Amino acid sequence: KKSPQEKKQLYSNRGMTLEEDINETNRYYLEQQIAVIHKKPTPVQIVNVNYPKRSAAVIKEAYFKQASTTDYNGVYKGMYIDFEAKETKNKTSFPLQNFHNHQVKHMKDVISQNGVCFVLLRFTSLDEIYYLDAKNLLYFWDRQLNGGRKSIKKEEIDECGHKITLGYQPRIDYINIIDKLYF
Amino acid sequence: KKSPQEKKQLYSNRGMTLEEDINETNRYYLEQQIAVIHKKPTPVQIVNVNYPKRSAAVIKEAYFKQASTTDYNGVYKGMYIDFEAKETKNKTSFPLQNFHNHQVKHMKDVISQNGVCFVLLRFTSLDEIYYLDAKNLLYFWDRQLNGGRKSIKKEEIDECGHKITLGYQPRIDYINIIDKLYF
Ligand SMILES: [Mg+2]
Ligand SMILES: [Mg+2]
Repeated sequence: KKSPQEKKQLYSNRGMTLEEDINETNRYYLEQQIAVIHKKPTPVQIVNVNYPKRSAAVIKEAYFKQASTTDYNGVYKGMYIDFEAKETKNKTSFPLQNFHNHQVKHMKDVISQNGVCFVLLRFTSLDEIYYLDAKNLLYFWDRQLNGGRKSIKKEEIDECGHKITLGYQPRIDYINIIDKLYF
Repeated sequence: KKSPQEKKQLYSNRGMTLEEDINETNRYYLEQQIAVIHKKPTPVQIVNVNYPKRSAAVIKEAYFKQASTTDYNGVYKGMYIDFEAKETKNKTSFPLQNFHNHQVKHMKDVISQNGVCFVLLRFTSLDEIYYLDAKNLLYFWDRQLNGGRKSIKKEEIDECGHKITLGYQPRIDYINIIDKLYF
């Protein structure tokens, strides 16, 4: 049995990126048959490929493309789930420049189709993670477009969002929030 | 107004791949706010990237990875939609080798979560397209695993599947089948 000290180390998360934590979470959900959520591959524009005789094709020239959707999607109890994950080192606000036009447009599309759409926001310096519904994000996005502030205040996220306590398995239990909000 | 001759040419589809037709279909669904379905990017293992000073990062070495899921997914009226598309030049049967273990496993996962899961099969020589529910595909897949035939007979697809007539807009109206089956 692990001592509280060891346990604390297990639960603490220094060095893990938000993406790694989410991938771990999704792996857990998949294994436990809780939900089927995958990260989409990084979109790449392939320009030049070599096909050597007795080995695998080698991509010799390619470029990163901007994603036209969010990074994660999948299914939970028949419902379409879609989200994006972002981190900031800031402590008092979350910069909106972290999001791209394409992603915001995609979130609107998903909302129109009654999908479950949200963002996971991590304040790395505070070690805090929030679930924020995409509708709330769109509100702050539009505020910016109308000349308002270019970030979401931490207090606003505290008010509209749902704090997720980092766990061991699953690490970032966002399905728990979906359960509370939709079931 | 177009003559029947011209119309026939518009509707006929020589030279378009199944993927192109599906992408066009999805673009139409998105513009018309009918559904939000995207093709996932091709998964690539990136090994070496150059970061030139004043221009975009160049991927200098990368390899194609096997996909861990199907190629298309998204949302229609809140429901999770997931499918794979395959073509064959055969006229009397559809070879099961077109599908990979990973994809079949993923289809099972999606079915467990009550997602809408299917395959689009095109017989290129016959210019025929079928919607086949993933549960039916799994039946034929398991038959193969139990020593049965390595393909699905055309008559079996005719019986279990739903033929989709190629249209102009949308080209491959699979949402119409989903409407009939689920609404
Ligand atoms: Mg991202
Ligand atoms: Mg494929």
